[in-house]
Amino acid sequence: MSTSTNLNDVNLEAVAGLAGKVQESPEVADTVWQATVTWDGAFRSSAQVRDFAPLESDEPVGLGGTDTAPNPVEQLLGALGNCLAVGYAANASAAGIEIRSLSIDLAGDLNLKTFLGLEPEGNAGYQGIKVDVHLDADATPEQLATLHEAVVGTSPVGHTLQRPVPVDIRLV
Amino acid sequence: MSTSTNLNDVNLEAVAGLAGKVQESPEVADTVWQATVTWDGAFRSSAQVRDFAPLESDEPVGLGGTDTAPNPVEQLLGALGNCLAVGYAANASAAGIEIRSLSIDLAGDLNLKTFLGLEPEGNAGYQGIKVDVHLDADATPEQLATLHEAVVGTSPVGHTLQRPVPVDIRLV
Repeated sequence: MSTSTNLNDVNLEAVAGLAGKVQESPEVADTVWQATVTWDGAFRSSAQVRDFAPLESDEPVGLGGTDTAPNPVEQLLGALGNCLAVGYAANASAAGIEIRSLSIDLAGDLNLKTFLGLEPEGNAGYQGIKVDVHLDADATPEQLATLHEAVVGTSPVGHTLQRPVPVDIRLV
Repeated sequence: MSTSTNLNDVNLEAVAGLAGKVQESPEVADTVWQATVTWDGAFRSSAQVRDFAPLESDEPVGLGGTDTAPNPVEQLLGALGNCLAVGYAANASAAGIEIRSLSIDLAGDLNLKTFLGLEPEGNAGYQGIKVDVHLDADATPEQLATLHEAVVGTSPVGHTLQRPVPVDIRLV
């Protein structure tokens, strides 16, 4: 069977194969992900991931940037939404649910005082993030609720944001 | 003075202007940032931020994807690095330090068991993130240490990752 005939086009065999490998050799589950960022002058920079096109970054003019690209806190919301999309696709396919359409609206509240140096001991980050998921799928409300619970409970970016993560930043 | 003649090309006047506005009207500091993600089939999706080109997302083949773009946890590292780059540029400029070059290597450890459904109550997210900053700047080691401390202490994405953030995900 070609992957294109799979439900939601998801290659569940690959996911199941990886899960099988992890059960045989648990260390396979320990992964390291990487990116390299290069400063391009002013508030512009770009993130290189493997051989893909760089992810460009800038700040709006009101924040001192030249507004040529999404800013880092917007990129973070994008990463969360993209992660949830993978989660819905994977878990829906595993449950035999066809997704007709899926879009995800994300919004985060952030107070700029600490970033601007006006509240040095404050929280520069998101105070909270709200996510509205618009899912049109061939399933009962109960199936959708179960699907939703599975996605929220297993989202790598969701868990990263909801938990305090040790971030070790060194000048080398 | 045109912005192009500013140190590190940073438009510090805009940042100072915003800080001044916040001191007059604190509510100006309360900002909301947004993104909308659309599922494109399989594990592909794209994040739309304002009018910029969509941020494409996919998963490696081994994880069931078609490997056409960075995956969400890589995008998250990119967002952190891009945020730190803004922080170095802003704080160096405010301190009168010229940056000759800046690159930032990021790596995060993530155990796939929870994402794969093998450890349902576990942590699907990053267990830790290491960041190596390569900064060539016209400054003493003491100035660089002070700069580094300011950047780490005021990074919106850094703080978001280091603190538990309430993430409210709803099916609407």
